Amino acid sequence: MSTFGKIFRVTTYGESHCKSVGCIVDGCPPGLKLSESDIQPQLSRRRPGQSKLSTPRNEKDQVHIQSGTENGITLGSPIGMLVLNEDHRPNDYSETDLYPRPSHADWTYIQKYGAKSASGGGRSSARETIGRVAAGAIAEKVLSLANGVEIVAFVSSIGSVAMDRNPLDPTFQKILSTITREEVDGVGPIRCPDASVREQMVKEIEKYRDAQDSIGGVVTCVVRNCPIGLGEPCFDKLEATLAHAMLSLPATKGFEIGSGFHGTTIPGSKHNDPFVFDELNKRLKTKTNNSGGTQGGISNGENIYFSVAFKSAATISQEQQTSTYDGKSGVLAARGRHDPSVTPRAVPIVEAMTALVLVDQLLIQKSREYGRSIVASSD
Amino acid sequence: MSTFGKIFRVTTYGESHCKSVGCIVDGCPPGLKLSESDIQPQLSRRRPGQSKLSTPRNEKDQVHIQSGTENGITLGSPIGMLVLNEDHRPNDYSETDLYPRPSHADWTYIQKYGAKSASGGGRSSARETIGRVAAGAIAEKVLSLANGVEIVAFVSSIGSVAMDRNPLDPTFQKILSTITREEVDGVGPIRCPDASVREQMVKEIEKYRDAQDSIGGVVTCVVRNCPIGLGEPCFDKLEATLAHAMLSLPATKGFEIGSGFHGTTIPGSKHNDPFVFDELNKRLKTKTNNSGGTQGGISNGENIYFSVAFKSAATISQEQQTSTYDGKSGVLAARGRHDPSVTPRAVPIVEAMTALVLVDQLLIQKSREYGRSIVASSD
Amino acid sequence: MSTFGKIFRVTTYGESHCKSVGCIVDGCPPGLKLSESDIQPQLSRRRPGQSKLSTPRNEKDQVHIQSGTENGITLGSPIGMLVLNEDHRPNDYSETDLYPRPSHADWTYIQKYGAKSASGGGRSSARETIGRVAAGAIAEKVLSLANGVEIVAFVSSIGSVAMDRNPLDPTFQKILSTITREEVDGVGPIRCPDASVREQMVKEIEKYRDAQDSIGGVVTCVVRNCPIGLGEPCFDKLEATLAHAMLSLPATKGFEIGSGFHGTTIPGSKHNDPFVFDELNKRLKTKTNNSGGTQGGISNGENIYFSVAFKSAATISQEQQTSTYDGKSGVLAARGRHDPSVTPRAVPIVEAMTALVLVDQLLIQKSREYGRSIVASSD
Amino acid sequence: MSTFGKIFRVTTYGESHCKSVGCIVDGCPPGLKLSESDIQPQLSRRRPGQSKLSTPRNEKDQVHIQSGTENGITLGSPIGMLVLNEDHRPNDYSETDLYPRPSHADWTYIQKYGAKSASGGGRSSARETIGRVAAGAIAEKVLSLANGVEIVAFVSSIGSVAMDRNPLDPTFQKILSTITREEVDGVGPIRCPDASVREQMVKEIEKYRDAQDSIGGVVTCVVRNCPIGLGEPCFDKLEATLAHAMLSLPATKGFEIGSGFHGTTIPGSKHNDPFVFDELNKRLKTKTNNSGGTQGGISNGENIYFSVAFKSAATISQEQQTSTYDGKSGVLAARGRHDPSVTPRAVPIVEAMTALVLVDQLLIQKSREYGRSIVASSD
Repeated sequence: MSTFGKIFRVTTYGESHCKSVGCIVDGCPPGLKLSESDIQPQLSRRRPGQSKLSTPRNEKDQVHIQSGTENGITLGSPIGMLVLNEDHRPNDYSETDLYPRPSHADWTYIQKYGAKSASGGGRSSARETIGRVAAGAIAEKVLSLANGVEIVAFVSSIGSVAMDRNPLDPTFQKILSTITREEVDGVGPIRCPDASVREQMVKEIEKYRDAQDSIGGVVTCVVRNCPIGLGEPCFDKLEATLAHAMLSLPATKGFEIGSGFHGTTIPGSKHNDPFVFDELNKRLKTKTNNSGGTQGGISNGENIYFSVAFKSAATISQEQQTSTYDGKSGVLAARGRHDPSVTPRAVPIVEAMTALVLVDQLLIQKSREYGRSIVASSD
Repeated sequence: MSTFGKIFRVTTYGESHCKSVGCIVDGCPPGLKLSESDIQPQLSRRRPGQSKLSTPRNEKDQVHIQSGTENGITLGSPIGMLVLNEDHRPNDYSETDLYPRPSHADWTYIQKYGAKSASGGGRSSARETIGRVAAGAIAEKVLSLANGVEIVAFVSSIGSVAMDRNPLDPTFQKILSTITREEVDGVGPIRCPDASVREQMVKEIEKYRDAQDSIGGVVTCVVRNCPIGLGEPCFDKLEATLAHAMLSLPATKGFEIGSGFHGTTIPGSKHNDPFVFDELNKRLKTKTNNSGGTQGGISNGENIYFSVAFKSAATISQEQQTSTYDGKSGVLAARGRHDPSVTPRAVPIVEAMTALVLVDQLLIQKSREYGRSIVASSD
Repeated sequence: MSTFGKIFRVTTYGESHCKSVGCIVDGCPPGLKLSESDIQPQLSRRRPGQSKLSTPRNEKDQVHIQSGTENGITLGSPIGMLVLNEDHRPNDYSETDLYPRPSHADWTYIQKYGAKSASGGGRSSARETIGRVAAGAIAEKVLSLANGVEIVAFVSSIGSVAMDRNPLDPTFQKILSTITREEVDGVGPIRCPDASVREQMVKEIEKYRDAQDSIGGVVTCVVRNCPIGLGEPCFDKLEATLAHAMLSLPATKGFEIGSGFHGTTIPGSKHNDPFVFDELNKRLKTKTNNSGGTQGGISNGENIYFSVAFKSAATISQEQQTSTYDGKSGVLAARGRHDPSVTPRAVPIVEAMTALVLVDQLLIQKSREYGRSIVASSD
Repeated sequence: MSTFGKIFRVTTYGESHCKSVGCIVDGCPPGLKLSESDIQPQLSRRRPGQSKLSTPRNEKDQVHIQSGTENGITLGSPIGMLVLNEDHRPNDYSETDLYPRPSHADWTYIQKYGAKSASGGGRSSARETIGRVAAGAIAEKVLSLANGVEIVAFVSSIGSVAMDRNPLDPTFQKILSTITREEVDGVGPIRCPDASVREQMVKEIEKYRDAQDSIGGVVTCVVRNCPIGLGEPCFDKLEATLAHAMLSLPATKGFEIGSGFHGTTIPGSKHNDPFVFDELNKRLKTKTNNSGGTQGGISNGENIYFSVAFKSAATISQEQQTSTYDGKSGVLAARGRHDPSVTPRAVPIVEAMTALVLVDQLLIQKSREYGRSIVASSD
């Protein structure tokens, strides 16, 4: 379905070749200063065409707020937003009228919906994420006001060129504690903060681009200053809703939080995060953070960090031996130029979904805290 | 929250030391033959105390159906089920009155709920999964009748001893296509079908057990005969709901489907699954299955396979330097014996959550298919 | 919240003085022929300014489909729709800057949201219903294709002038069985099919209009050809979701189905609907229909009929003794001319919400029927 | 479906002749003192067999808390509760094996579920309401602690014997402002606080009882001290969720809030509730309360009052001309004695559903207030 969240909810619409794409944000607190300028930066960060590493297709993606604000202040009513599509029907896709693109959604969409949109995959297009990013920008603003929550994503691997993401590695933990979006964008379109691998990553992408091929990668995201107590066991643990959000993104194949898959090889005695007293906040904190900021599905006040695997883009220019819709074997070559790596562009999208998860869990948790407060104050 | 699913829903209750644990299954089709004997096998598979590799605590876990059936046939009304707790208050946990256990949920539960249950972590206990497994057994029966759906999970790594899970490896794909639960259980409590690593896995667990330590692992799960078309883009893609389900399980840190994280290193030209004509089913199928059975968030009829990372158990017998609830540094040693690896026991739990995801998506998809059929048959 | 439905869902946005109002329809079956011309008629029926009995404010209310269709056929993806607001800020409302209008939502909106929209009541405006009506028009088309479902609402009382709605009255039952929208609209803006009271109703409205006052009324709605089996006990009985839908409309104060409040005075021996064999459909049917088309919360194939009470419009031109926002006693006189009775305009809105309830329950029921079929066909 | 609520949720199970009936309450605040003695009183109030006016069937209905509390304090985890069924299979119902009872749910349940429970109507039995009442008792306790919320329901009509429920009648408003449960129960099983009609009501019931017939009635409910701001426009207005809750109860045919259906005959100039300054609370209040405590779907701090129509019980002892399941015309006479009026017993059930609506809306509203507070405190 096209709605995400329980109390702060986003519902999205739109595919590649319709009039507009957009969303409705329901449950945004009233009284928030909000204008297009709060939303546009993240939309621009997700735009293609920002460098020679990414696809040359140029979209403007200006957001227009339709409702829910007056004089730049939110009313508490649903916020409608839309971005016009300029590019209603490209000719580049014509061969896909015969061939379902391998590892794209063309064939499963036909199977499920019976209908074939002009772009083949309908809502599987990356353009679907515009509504998410617009909604996420609002969520982020609320989170920032709530607790100074900071959400920063970055590229941590491209193909086989990877940063060290070992949770016990102090360099990695330091990046998590300090990295900013400005730094992420400041290093160029690759969006990897680790100088030691960045050049190799660029080369990795260029290699596959030149081979008319594509390559995947990993986006890592950190949340700082997340309030303690977010997450709703047993089914809506914080990491469960994050995993849901991330695997709902196009081209994702994996999610891991904290030590993740690698952590399964670290024995409990080293993996456990012991408690120490935090003099500054006058509460316990953990000495290490292999957990990645949650325990028992509930945020513990440490940095939340997780990684998301993005597969190699399905659309490539080189020829592929495959089959037509009606079962005839043949060769498909996608025309035009295609993005060899979608991973760097996924950075603001991962941030948006993170914000949507957190703001919803935050608002739910605040009702829990209220409930606690009223039963505790009485007998 | 404690409800999972939209049309076929389970709501669970119960913690370690209350009277019973159980669930309500809502939306089960009427007319299904159902008795405790359909449910008990999976509950027994998740029981501890089945071998010297796992914890000696012996629980009986007999399920009692309360409602929703008459004469062994479901009525279509909610199915209440419960399992009595026998073990209301162990003394073994007493030191945890002073210390929040590192990387357990004791501290975050106190932060969120203010309340401290006898067992520390309340619903974070593995005992919470009984309701899931009972509900999952019903879901499986429906899926089996629907399409002969088969769900088999197994241990694919323990610590650093791992099967080859490369999606391009034919041996791995063959295991996915043929493995049965009988085979998984037939190889002993380790539940790993790969003879080449099984002995090492046992040794890995024994090593950590002897060191009063613990070790994590990975459970891989395959679904065969899944109908085409399951999954509800854009937010409830099949893999998104699977990821949600898996990360809602205790001790999980990661999820990957198909080629997963490793797949990010395989270029598109190799990663793409080309289509070929399937003479048997008179439809397209994919030649390879790096996608893991979904494209665009929708099942494509191939085997669905995914892996779940289980961290090393937080409760270990060896001493841990940590802090008391009130901030005093000290040493915690959990009394009693503890399970050095929960991973093998997680096998039926992963299967249960898989079944719950699929049956819900199946029932939703069938309403979609109906919708298609009625608008198509008219003008 | 601003989303209604579980499987076929509408999410709405927009208030009186923003850029546009609209909705996203999620879960509409793919393959449906759909264009603006399917939606516009019901939007036009809800427009004010259609006669001297209603408010002269003239709005065009042209709907624009944004997404979810290609070449006039639905894709199965969300259908975004919007209607531009032309009337961004009227001056007529200025006195409401000082006074919360009695029995309007100005004061409660301020209390809940802290924010005051230009029109005072924000989303409490009748303009909010545009999204509902647009979505309802799509729902109706699906229902019509599914089973020839017909939904017709009409005015059954204005002030103290009322049709006989006694369920045992054959004239009333005949109207329910035969009335069409064409007939409802054909009798003029009053939309009452009963010629014996229609003229009096017009006079009742004129009387209150001339007194710068307003008067309420009742809308009755009938659904014919509703499939048997719709409704999801125990909480989502068909009448429960209908009641929810109707009481979510502005200015509604009551809902009754079948014999309703009057039926509480009819003893069981007369109120019970005995069964007879229906030779035409080769199944049981009921001889009378005091139940109003549902039993136990589930549709039984008879006409579903219910009534909705609309209070007298809160905005009146005559002076009202009340208080300013800051507690000073004073006299409020709303400028401009106001609709003396909103009841006739509510007719298409009641139809829209009815369609939204039914299409959602229909799609859910079809998944139930599938479930039954697969468990029944096996052992 | 069998779950009600979004943040404070109840899921129920059980029919007449299974092992137990019960529920899971999810989202109850932790730290609440709670034992069976908080829940039993309302369960006992809904029990049949309390007087010669109601059915002699005697059920004990002792509730057993299964989980979610320790040492009499809630943990914040789901609260499982059950009541054993003692009466597994009565013989009194045998004739219903041949005949679907008119205006009961036997036939629609067969149509929807294909399955026929021993009692015919499965979940349509009044016994289904036990889970609601148990959950409602917890909700009430939270509401009482939150704001001293008081919920009192009473019988306002039996057949054609009715209290004056005109909202402009000061006697009626005084009853709403002062009535207590003790007073309601203190006047005998009829539960009507109006001495002027009470004796007639008893006679009305006796008349129909002696005629082996049944008669309906109306239950009116008042909520005092409800916080301002509850209700979630546009679809989840407070009255919409109340209407949903009430129409989900067995045998209900109507709902009205405030002036209700009668209010449609009162012109706006009299129906509007003008504002006056409330010196005590230093805020506006309304002088009259025709609205019934909500405006624009949001509570305004005045008494919330509404009425629910209960039809005449479908099961009567006198013979009824009807049809067998297989279409043969015949005469059905229900054996045993049956309750001639279920209306008085509905009183605690109406209170329970009211509490469930309010506590859920309260917890949601508190998250809204938090949202407002954080965006307001910053720029």
